[in-house]
Amino acid sequence: MNKKPLILVTNDDGINAPGIRTLIYVMNAIGDVVVVAPDSPQSGMGHAITLNATLYSKDVQFNDGPQKEYSCSGTPADCVKLALRELLDRTPDLCVSGINHGSNSSINVIYSGTMSAAIEAGIEGVPAIGFSLLDYSWDANFQHCKTFVRTITKKVLEHGLPKGVILNVNIPNMPEKKIKGIKVCRQAKANWIEKFDKRKTPQGRDYYWLTGEFVNLDGGEDTDEWALENGYVSLMPVQFDLTAHHFIKDLNSWNL
Amino acid sequence: MNKKPLILVTNDDGINAPGIRTLIYVMNAIGDVVVVAPDSPQSGMGHAITLNATLYSKDVQFNDGPQKEYSCSGTPADCVKLALRELLDRTPDLCVSGINHGSNSSINVIYSGTMSAAIEAGIEGVPAIGFSLLDYSWDANFQHCKTFVRTITKKVLEHGLPKGVILNVNIPNMPEKKIKGIKVCRQAKANWIEKFDKRKTPQGRDYYWLTGEFVNLDGGEDTDEWALENGYVSLMPVQFDLTAHHFIKDLNSWNL
Repeated sequence: MNKKPLILVTNDDGINAPGIRTLIYVMNAIGDVVVVAPDSPQSGMGHAITLNATLYSKDVQFNDGPQKEYSCSGTPADCVKLALRELLDRTPDLCVSGINHGSNSSINVIYSGTMSAAIEAGIEGVPAIGFSLLDYSWDANFQHCKTFVRTITKKVLEHGLPKGVILNVNIPNMPEKKIKGIKVCRQAKANWIEKFDKRKTPQGRDYYWLTGEFVNLDGGEDTDEWALENGYVSLMPVQFDLTAHHFIKDLNSWNL
Repeated sequence: MNKKPLILVTNDDGINAPGIRTLIYVMNAIGDVVVVAPDSPQSGMGHAITLNATLYSKDVQFNDGPQKEYSCSGTPADCVKLALRELLDRTPDLCVSGINHGSNSSINVIYSGTMSAAIEAGIEGVPAIGFSLLDYSWDANFQHCKTFVRTITKKVLEHGLPKGVILNVNIPNMPEKKIKGIKVCRQAKANWIEKFDKRKTPQGRDYYWLTGEFVNLDGGEDTDEWALENGYVSLMPVQFDLTAHHFIKDLNSWNL
C-alpha cells in the first residue's frame, strides 16, 4: 500500500517504560504511530475497565520520534477504548501492546494488562499483537526484540488476522544469535502456586503480599512454555470466545 | 456424601451486596459456607490481581446465617487466591460467585469480576459457577434466582465439572413463572459501542466517563443472548485456554 498504516501503540507498564519506547521505535519505521498508554504501571490489571471513576488523558511529548502521544489515567483496556472512540481520527490498521517487562505466556495471558489491551483492540475488529520479554526488570535489554517485533508486525500487516484472533508473542531473554526462531504455539497448561507473605503493620494489623511460584504442568512440545524454554520466540493465537464448546454436549445431558 | 460440601462464596459487587446475600442464603441450605468477598464494589475489574499493593482481610459478621465471612481489600481474583491459600482449612468442593447485579453474558465475561473470581477457582481446580441477574440496580429482586441457583449448584455437586471448565449462568429479570427453563449456550458475538461522555472539571480540565451501548451481532439461536432475550436462563461453559486453535495451521503457513 502507498499510504502508511496507522498503528496504535499501548502497554501496561506505563508510557515511559523502556519496553514501550522500544516498541515505538520499531513502529515508527513501519507506519504512522499514535501512542495511548497508561500514565502509571498497570501490571496485573487483567481486562479491568474504569466504570466508577473519571478518566483523564494528556498530550505528552518524549522527543524520541515523530509519534503523537497521549497518557491516560485508566487501565490498558481503557486506553484502547479511549483511543478508538475519542483520540484517533480513524480506525488504526494495527494495535501493538508492550513490549511487556515480563512473560505473558500460558496462564499469564489471563492476568495480563498488555494482552487485555491487545484483546480489546481485537474485540473492536483491529488486528492486534501483544509483545512481552521474559525479563521483569525495568532496565531489561530490549535490543534483541526489535527483529522479531518487526518481522511479526510486517507479517500481520501483510496477511491480516481473522476476526476474533489476536497474537500473543513472548521473547526469551537471551542474545538474538541464540534464539532459534519463531514457533507457533498453544497456551500451556500452567499456573501459579500462590504464596501470601503475611506481615504485620507497625500498628499490629495483618496484611499480605501476593507472591508465588510458576508451575508448568504441561508436557506438550507444542506449547508456549516449551518454545520459550527451548530458545524460541513463542507466537500464540488468542481468542476471546471463552465458550468451552467441547463441554456443551455433556452439559445438555444433565437435563436441567 | 455424608459430609456437607464446603462452598466458597465470593462476588464483585462487595460483601454487603444483596446479590451475594441471596447466594449465601441458598448455599447455607446445601453446604458449609465460607464467604471471602471484596470490601467494596469491584465491577469491571476483569481478572485484575493486586501485585503492587498490600492486601487486607477482616473477619466480618452479618448475623444472617451460620456462614463464616471475611472481607478483603483486593479484587475478586485476589479474594479467591487468598481464600484458597490462606483462609480456608481445606480445598472447597465448590466456588460460587455472584449473584452479580447485571448481566455477564457474551463479551461481558471478559470484563467481569464475578466471572474472573469463578475462573480463578477453576484455574485452581475447584469446580466453579458465576451467577448474574440481568438487573444492574442495587435493590434488584433476587427472589426468583433462588430456584435456578439451587438447581444448577446441586447438578454441579452431583456431576462435577471437567478440569478447565467453569459455568457462567445469567438469569433474566422476570417473574419465575415466565422463565421457560435453563438453556445451554455458547458465548454470543456481541460487543459494546463505547461512548465517552466528555466533561470539564470546575478547573477546566477535560475528563471522560465511559458509557456505551450493547450490540448483539450474532443471529445464532444457540447463544446466551438469544436465550436471555427469549426468556431462558443461559448456562454457558467457559474455558481459560484462550488458544485460537483453529488459526494455528494458517499461522504456520506464514513461514515465520
